[in-house]
Parts: sequence; structure tokens; C-alpha cells
Amino acid sequence: MTKQQNILIIGAGLCGSLLALRMGQRGYNVSVCEKRPDLRKVNLDSGRSINLAFSDRGNKAMKLVGIEDKVKALCIPMNGRMLHDIEGNTVFAPYSGREHEYINSISRDQLNALLLDEAEKHKNVNVYFNKKCKSVDFEKTTALFHDYETKNEFIEDADVIIATDGAGSIMRQSYYLGKKFLFSFSQEYLTHGYKELSILPTKKGDYKAYKNALHIWGREAFMLIALPNLDGSFTVTLFLSYADGEYNFNNLITKERVIEFFNKYFKDALNLMPNLADDFFKNPTSPLGTVKCSPWHYKGNTLLMGDAAHAIVPFYGQGMNASFEDVVEFDKVLEEHEGNWETVFKIYEASRKKDTDAIAELAIDNFHEMKGHVNQAVFREKRNLEMTLEKHFPNEYSSKYSLVTFNVNIGYREAMLQGRAQDKAILNMLSDGKLDLKDDLKTILEKVKTATNAILEDDRIAGLKQ
Amino acid sequence: MTKQQNILIIGAGLCGSLLALRMGQRGYNVSVCEKRPDLRKVNLDSGRSINLAFSDRGNKAMKLVGIEDKVKALCIPMNGRMLHDIEGNTVFAPYSGREHEYINSISRDQLNALLLDEAEKHKNVNVYFNKKCKSVDFEKTTALFHDYETKNEFIEDADVIIATDGAGSIMRQSYYLGKKFLFSFSQEYLTHGYKELSILPTKKGDYKAYKNALHIWGREAFMLIALPNLDGSFTVTLFLSYADGEYNFNNLITKERVIEFFNKYFKDALNLMPNLADDFFKNPTSPLGTVKCSPWHYKGNTLLMGDAAHAIVPFYGQGMNASFEDVVEFDKVLEEHEGNWETVFKIYEASRKKDTDAIAELAIDNFHEMKGHVNQAVFREKRNLEMTLEKHFPNEYSSKYSLVTFNVNIGYREAMLQGRAQDKAILNMLSDGKLDLKDDLKTILEKVKTATNAILEDDRIAGLKQ
Repeated sequence: MTKQQNILIIGAGLCGSLLALRMGQRGYNVSVCEKRPDLRKVNLDSGRSINLAFSDRGNKAMKLVGIEDKVKALCIPMNGRMLHDIEGNTVFAPYSGREHEYINSISRDQLNALLLDEAEKHKNVNVYFNKKCKSVDFEKTTALFHDYETKNEFIEDADVIIATDGAGSIMRQSYYLGKKFLFSFSQEYLTHGYKELSILPTKKGDYKAYKNALHIWGREAFMLIALPNLDGSFTVTLFLSYADGEYNFNNLITKERVIEFFNKYFKDALNLMPNLADDFFKNPTSPLGTVKCSPWHYKGNTLLMGDAAHAIVPFYGQGMNASFEDVVEFDKVLEEHEGNWETVFKIYEASRKKDTDAIAELAIDNFHEMKGHVNQAVFREKRNLEMTLEKHFPNEYSSKYSLVTFNVNIGYREAMLQGRAQDKAILNMLSDGKLDLKDDLKTILEKVKTATNAILEDDRIAGLKQ
Repeated sequence: MTKQQNILIIGAGLCGSLLALRMGQRGYNVSVCEKRPDLRKVNLDSGRSINLAFSDRGNKAMKLVGIEDKVKALCIPMNGRMLHDIEGNTVFAPYSGREHEYINSISRDQLNALLLDEAEKHKNVNVYFNKKCKSVDFEKTTALFHDYETKNEFIEDADVIIATDGAGSIMRQSYYLGKKFLFSFSQEYLTHGYKELSILPTKKGDYKAYKNALHIWGREAFMLIALPNLDGSFTVTLFLSYADGEYNFNNLITKERVIEFFNKYFKDALNLMPNLADDFFKNPTSPLGTVKCSPWHYKGNTLLMGDAAHAIVPFYGQGMNASFEDVVEFDKVLEEHEGNWETVFKIYEASRKKDTDAIAELAIDNFHEMKGHVNQAVFREKRNLEMTLEKHFPNEYSSKYSLVTFNVNIGYREAMLQGRAQDKAILNMLSDGKLDLKDDLKTILEKVKTATNAILEDDRIAGLKQ
């Protein structure tokens, strides 16, 4: 019987541990091999707490596996962006005009630990740590591992291998280097890198800045952001060019210069970060890349999922959510075609890839929005109008941000096309003086809808990709 | 003195031999290492003659090196597309409304031989054949070669290495595998492959089909094309899916089935190709891929050029022309900044990459145009109108095809943006009944211009990439 099949999952990160849980619920014999130690047992004394934005698409997966409430306990709601200007003034810009729509800050490690605990409750799920995958033989459906504990190599044989081993996926590399089939692949780096920093809690353990927001210090050429943690701290991330501009990662090489840079551009943040210079030189600078590839699968033997198939830059807060949604979409296809892996993999990729390609594009667009557009008058005017429309017509209007983040019944691609057309319609009407904001709201809504549909129709006729 | 510097060029194909000629003219000590035998000495008894579309951007380079007339002698003008429908009816669709604008069919080998002859006229240029590059050490500016004649390996040391070793570039692979810097890279395959076939001359040596056209049998899901050769033959290329559809490369495995396929879809072509089945099983099926990467250079040591930096699919007939234009653009930057290789390489990539990215996109678009759109009524109506505008307003209107192919004073990117906006304007006005083709032509031209500018302006305001 199918359910007796052995599924090998490579990587016990967020996507791999969720997938293991779901496949365990479905009754498969699941083995998971993870290169790192068990994060539940290791004392990570680096003191760095990495958080992520968790939102509705991710939550759909938590509902699927029945742990929505447990995850909610780990979440800090962020209802909007807190925009910090260079003088230290702040403006709060909500993510939605609908009160129930917000995103959450969550600890990567806490969520990963929960998913592992839940997966291991199933006797048919076994997770092995300190096992580093070295290569995958996708024709034989076997994987070669190095065991960091015994120092030995071993081969795992399975009926199906699913690699959820992240942006640097070893199985994807085996596809690429194997040259057994035409493998489309791209890795694209931004010229910016990032570095994690922190705002520690007050001595009493309180938050030094407003808790329920994603803080942004957008400075056009670079930016700083901060997300809250449950312990009263914020994880802060600096996005900065490696090589361009007066200040860049290559030339910020002394404490004095780092302080000078922050004093000039992020003075209010600097005041909350006496630990800045230490953090800056203790923590690594990491690149920002987008990875796409196709096919994701080899016949019915092997499949890439999560970041291994589609790594994106972090600016839409959708990386983890997209990987979790992968599991939901995969589960839907599996439900319909269980028993024929090749069919499952093919249909899954055919329906899913257009959406992960779209969120990759949107994430890069949002980098430019966050570091620059949010400060422009016409952009703010558009956002204010959209918040008003969402508030007054909760069932009739959703901004691009809402479509992407909260409207889980449409895919990223549909959200992108509709959202971009709306943005174009509103920005052009505002710019041409064709929207009178004193008009009644219903009239404005109809104008926006009409102009949006005209844009979509013009694109359709011109045969542009849709 | 700078001119005493040793330049190593890897690859003596079209781009490499042109570059060697130009650098020889500039006085550098140039060594070229090519993995294949000297094509001027080898009797290529496969009998396959591969031809390419040669047009104005390529010709700009021939003017630069002073061999325009010699190349012209190898050219067969193609004034338009000869469209063959499934019943064997033909329609001739010109490439331009201006008589002096046409493209040419040229033999790859004859042109390559000419460029090698011209390069070797310079005493400071030496070309070595049967030397296969195995890797490049871009930090030391050395390259490792295998000599097919002596079976030995040797290392070449140079002041500058320029790799023109094609779509499968070894130096690009050294960049990718070296992991010494952030290297963005993509290889994207179409699901279609291609196979070269031939229409042989009549016994008298005449052309069996109209000589001065690029013949197209567009069948939506696949297509056949043919370009003339000087010897009276045509090189025919079949573009077909590997795996999809009733007929595909994976299932065309018997002569009977190949004949059946051609009889059903390309009957008039089949009548000219008694040699079809033999050609089909003798010649390989090859993939169609696009390669992009960045950076093209490592400091002032090494540079990728031509297909090694930007391989594209063949549907715009611009692959060779883009590589030749690379040499023209590189030469311009070199003229201004000679003596500082890092500056030359940086400025060259900064100005050139946007254009090679654009022609890569345009080439994929043109696949869909050639196999399908050319048969649609609204597309033909647009093309007819554009030909009329070009004829009557030769200095005021150029179609996208003309902008890309003949307007050498603008780059591919500007041609793409202007051309796409024009297409969108005309297709939408035709579709909405807003263009009365009985109006006087000047009125129509103004309408097209106004609508095009409005589209460009709307995109600009919406902040779409331009």
C-alpha cells in the first residue's frame, strides 16, 4: 500500500519540519535528515534572535496541520509600518484598512521547534540531526550523507526524496551538475547585503520602541528595519550596498565610522542601540539573492520545495509564508492524485511555480518601496486612499499589499497583476488630477475599478504576459 | 607602454576572431586559443551549412574594422518573411517599409574564416587551434589549456583575458564555481528544441524556393524556417517541443512518423525535401537557452564577451549581431579609457548589459510572434499599417522590428521600450475601433505617436521599470 512508502526529507528547517508533520499525518514513513544540531537542545549562546513576518498564507498551513493556536501564542501582531524620518519623526502607516488584517513577528527558532515537536509526535516520523547531505542520485532515488557525529558517510534509499534544504540546496546542485536533463536555473544577487543588529529591552524588560509595528528607517539608497521579539527586544536589520555610496559595507570598517553613519542617518535608532558597534562587528554581513529553477522534480523520484526551489529576498515578508503555502498546495494535489508521484509533482509545479515566480518579483519591488517610495507624497496619498477604501468597502477593495498578504484565496501571481494595475491606475489618476479626493468614496472606488480594468484589458490585447 | 600588453582571447568563433582583429588593429599583442581545429583547413564533410541572419548592428562592426565590402559579398539579402500556410499558400511580409532596410543570410563558417584571415594579417595577432580551455584563474589572470595535438596541459599567462568562448563558456563556469565574489547567473531553457535540415538546390543549382526571404511555416505550437545559402540550398530549422503535443522530438523516432508529421503540417516544404528523413536522423536535436550573468568582469583582469556573457535564443536573428555590437561598444569605451582595464570593463558592462538583457527578452517574444502571431488578422493589420507608415514617413516612424534591427543609433533596450509601447498602442486602437484606416496617414501617424507617448508616460508614473 502507498502509505507504507518511505519518504526522505532533506532539511528540518521551517518547510521541512512542516512537511514532515503533514506527511506524518498522512501516514507515510518519514525520515528527515538535517545537517545542523537539534536547535531544541543546543544553547545558541550567540544571543541572536532571528524573527520573521508570519501572515495569512503561512497560517493557512498551520490550520491544515491543526496548530494555529499554538503558533498564535508565539506571535506579536504588527499592524502597520512605523516610518522614521531622518529627524526622528514617526508616522504610522497601517497595512490594511481592515482591522483584522495584520502581520506578525515570530521567532524562527521557536516556530521551528514547535513544528519539530509536533512532527515527532507521530511514530512514523523520525528526525536525524547532524547529517549533512552531500549529493542526491535522483535516478536511483538515494542520497549521500556525511554524519558529523560518527564522521562516516552513508547512503539513504527512499521511495521519494523531497529536498527542503534551503537556498543553497544540495539536491538542486545535483540537478544542476548532473546534466541529465535540461535544468533552468538562476541565482540573482542584489548589490546590497544585510546585517542583523538589535535593540535590547529596557532594564525592566520593556520595549524601547512601539511594539506592534514593523519599524522602517528608509533612506533611498539604504534602510534599517526592526521587528519586535517576545522578550522585549527588537531584531534590527541594516540593508546597505556592499560597494556603492559614501557609506557601504566595504568601507564601514571601524567603530567610529559605523557610529558616524548611524548618527547621520539613524540618530533615533542609534539612541536605542548602545550595543550597535559590538553587534556590527560580531554579526556577519550576508548577501540577498533570488533563486529560481525548473523543473522542480525529477520524474516521480525527487522534488524540491520551499527555498530550495524558490529563494526570495525578504522585503515582502513572504519567504516563510510562501514555503508554508507550498506544503498546503502540495497537499491539495497529493489528496487528488495520491499514488502517482510523477503526476503529483508535475501538477504541483505547473500550478505553483507561476506564484513563487511572482512573489520573487514582488519582493524585489518592495525593497524599492520600503527604502524610498514610502517617503514620497504621491505614494503616501495612494496608500491613504487605499486604507480609506478598504475601511469603507471591506468586501470590494484590497490594495496590492492586502491581495498579496491577506487574500489567501488567490495566488501571488493574480495578486501581483491585479495589484500592479490598481497601483498604476491610482498613481496616474492622482498625478493627472483625475481623482478628486473630495468626491464621494463610492465614485472614487468606481473610477479606480474602471481604470484598473482598462489597464488589464489593454495589457491583454497587447499580448503582454498575464 | 600599454600597447605592449598581452591580451589572451579564449575562443576564435565569430566574436573572438572579430575582437582579435580589432585588438590587433589597436596594436596589442593578441593570442587567441580555440578548442576546435582551424575551420579553414578542415574538410567539414558533414555537408551541413549553418547560416545566420546578419544585419545593421553586425555591419557596424564590419565598418569599424574596415571589411564591410568583403562581408557584403557573402550576404544574401532577405527583404521579408515568406509565410507558408498549411495549404501551401504563401504571403510575403516585408521587414520594413524602407527599401534599404533588410536582413541577410550569411554562412557562419565563411564569415568566421574571413574574420580569422583578417585578424592573422596582423603580426601581433596569433591564433592557436585545438587548445581547449579547462579553467581560468581570474585572480592570477592565467588560463589552463589542454592541447589536443600534444595531449599536454599548459598555462597561459596574460595581462588581460577576454573569454569569447560561447554559451558554454569555461571562464563563466570558473566565475560560478570559484565563489570568490557574488556572481548572478541564469540559464533558462525553452521547452522546445531545434534540429537543422536542408532544402538542396535543383540539379541545375537553382533555388527551389524564393531566394530573398526568410521562409516561415508557423503552426502555433511549433514552426519550420528556412534561410538561403549561396550554393542554392536553404538551411531549414525545425523548432518543436521535446515532450509536449501529438508530435514532438521525443516521439518522432521513425522515418514514417517524421514523414507523416511533415506531410500533415509542412506539405509544401516536404515536397522540396526528399532528403528529409535522412537529415532528421543524422542531425542532432539541440536545446534553446538564454544565459545571463553579472558581473561580466573580475576587476581589471578578465572579461566575458559575446555569447559567453549573454547567450540568447535565435528568433530575432540578433545573436551574432549583438556579439559584434559588443566589440563596437567595447571599442568605444576602450578608446576613452585605454590604460585602465578595470574602468573599461566596468563602464562597458554598465552601459551594455541593459541592452543584451533586452535583446534576450525580445528574442523569446519573437518566438511566439513567428510561430503564431504572424498568422493572426490583427497582427497582420498592424504590420501592414506599420509598413505603410514607414514608407510614407521614413524619418518619422519605425516599427519595433525596425528599431531593433535597423536603428543602430539606439540600443536594444530603448528599441524594446519604444517598440512595445507602439505595438500596444496600435493593437489596442485597432481592437477598439479607434483607428480609421481610411483617415489620412498623417492623422493616423499622429494618433499612434500620441497613444504611444501616453503609454510610456503612464508606465513612467507607475514606476514600472524603464
